[in-house]
Amino acid sequence: MTSDHKQASGEDSLIARYFKPIATDPGAFGLDDDAAQLKAGGEDIVVTTDAIVEGVHYLPGDPPDTVARKALRVNLSDLAAKGATPAGFVLTLALRSVDEAWLAAFALGLGEDANSFDCPLLGGDTVSTPGPSMVSITAFGRVPDGKMVHRSGARPGNRVMVTGTIGDAALGLDLLKGGAVAKALSGDSTAADMLASRYRVPQPRNALALAVRNHAHAAMDVSDGLAGDLTKLCAVSGVSADVDAGRVPLSAAASGLLARGIIGLESLISGGDDYEILCTVPQADVAAFMQEAGRAGVAVAEIGTVTAQNQPPRFLDARGNPMRLQRLSYSHF
Amino acid sequence: MTSDHKQASGEDSLIARYFKPIATDPGAFGLDDDAAQLKAGGEDIVVTTDAIVEGVHYLPGDPPDTVARKALRVNLSDLAAKGATPAGFVLTLALRSVDEAWLAAFALGLGEDANSFDCPLLGGDTVSTPGPSMVSITAFGRVPDGKMVHRSGARPGNRVMVTGTIGDAALGLDLLKGGAVAKALSGDSTAADMLASRYRVPQPRNALALAVRNHAHAAMDVSDGLAGDLTKLCAVSGVSADVDAGRVPLSAAASGLLARGIIGLESLISGGDDYEILCTVPQADVAAFMQEAGRAGVAVAEIGTVTAQNQPPRFLDARGNPMRLQRLSYSHF
Repeated sequence: MTSDHKQASGEDSLIARYFKPIATDPGAFGLDDDAAQLKAGGEDIVVTTDAIVEGVHYLPGDPPDTVARKALRVNLSDLAAKGATPAGFVLTLALRSVDEAWLAAFALGLGEDANSFDCPLLGGDTVSTPGPSMVSITAFGRVPDGKMVHRSGARPGNRVMVTGTIGDAALGLDLLKGGAVAKALSGDSTAADMLASRYRVPQPRNALALAVRNHAHAAMDVSDGLAGDLTKLCAVSGVSADVDAGRVPLSAAASGLLARGIIGLESLISGGDDYEILCTVPQADVAAFMQEAGRAGVAVAEIGTVTAQNQPPRFLDARGNPMRLQRLSYSHF
Repeated sequence: MTSDHKQASGEDSLIARYFKPIATDPGAFGLDDDAAQLKAGGEDIVVTTDAIVEGVHYLPGDPPDTVARKALRVNLSDLAAKGATPAGFVLTLALRSVDEAWLAAFALGLGEDANSFDCPLLGGDTVSTPGPSMVSITAFGRVPDGKMVHRSGARPGNRVMVTGTIGDAALGLDLLKGGAVAKALSGDSTAADMLASRYRVPQPRNALALAVRNHAHAAMDVSDGLAGDLTKLCAVSGVSADVDAGRVPLSAAASGLLARGIIGLESLISGGDDYEILCTVPQADVAAFMQEAGRAGVAVAEIGTVTAQNQPPRFLDARGNPMRLQRLSYSHF
């Protein structure tokens, strides 16, 4: 949170007021320096960076604390999928204008999440922009030497596992935009609130990181849609997979909308913003992995098997026939 | 350069085409993973992050390779000032639209600078934005345990040193915007080109990093204007300084404009985007520091002395009287 290139007293006082109080890690130097310091302690540093843009990845009216939490959590989710322990993050905040109430709530949410995920704010940069606001975070994690879990390690026979439930965030986005989901759930505020919250505040599975590191051959977080992300994992690993679509874990709200015909399964498995962990685990490790996941309090579902062909994975319907997916994931370009 | 949250095939092919070829470091994993890996090798990792926004920190018509170079170099400049050796960087690119020619030139400039500064691209994120484009970089450096140079170490009696020349970039920006400098230099394309280039492509002083680490008590890079940045350094160190304004190093172009009365000294020492190193060196080390700077090919000027009061530094004019500065640095908010 230095004042580099064309930010000045206005920014300095903002930083002091809102971000200094949450930058308590010694490596942050009270945000008074040009740079932060990260002690590696003999481990590898895992680095991930993800940005969220107003109107694209969050909605202009979203509560500011949820914007902060989402920006941090989409990065925490990457660290979890790599088997890494959070070590800290830096923040770039591009703001159209200074809204002190917004900033105070943003910093509060950020500080709470930094604490609860043990991932301290180390530094950052605040810039003004004439366009939509944007929050870009680079997060750091630690893994023992060479132990980062890659996308590329999937092997035939591995079981395909996924955490939590899939598709809720995509439904939440449709709901917040007043789409078909909003109409269908107009009488069910509990389900509506759950889905909106899944879009706004992901639940990264950092509690599962150690189990992933201990047992997964390949892992990534599901952010662009399960179908598209599994396709990427298979491509990088040089394998394919057969997924039993009926075993993809769904929330009660998603199942209900599916049963009523409001949405199709495709929109759930190609929807984005899940921030669950997708991983492949050798058969011999499945029981131990499930046990560790249980102890970590993270629900995990076995949804399929890695196969030997180097081709896109197949999602099989109730009759065992491959589904024809029109799209695999969400695209902005 | 993962495809996290709402970027898809469009982005994936962009990344493959333009950024994979320059992401040759083993820690980048060919940009095929969710995260990169940084080997610490027993040293401290210095982390800095700086973003540049179209229309704010660079101009919409700036050549794309210079946008890439500036984005990386403003971060390299921080590493240099901290005495750190570049170790790599991650990039967040927020684009309004996909312009392949722009991207190709951007990636080319980025790759060339990554090579020449030995600071490899490790990963990143590409997002779409309806607003102005923005390039955010988080860069990493290495220093031996505890050897990062801070802003806070200035002590009374230290000499105040600054590299290169001051104020050229601010003049370059005025020129590119068609201001008074443009009119005054309409017949001098050599000077005009030099000033524009100082704004567009900073020359970070990474060659001086080791000398800074060996000899400076305090250091920072000059990005918001010399006067404002020295004020920050003094505040954090709990000291003041007397600077002989006549010894602030100026280019021939800046001196000429000053002599003709086109600009005042104040606009040079409060202008931004210099990306020079400002540091304080104990008297006993000055000769050795200058010698190492000479070997590194970096011009260094002694401009003043740190004094004991805890108050803003003074810039003294030719008669030894403190100048009254209307502003210390550039502000956007």
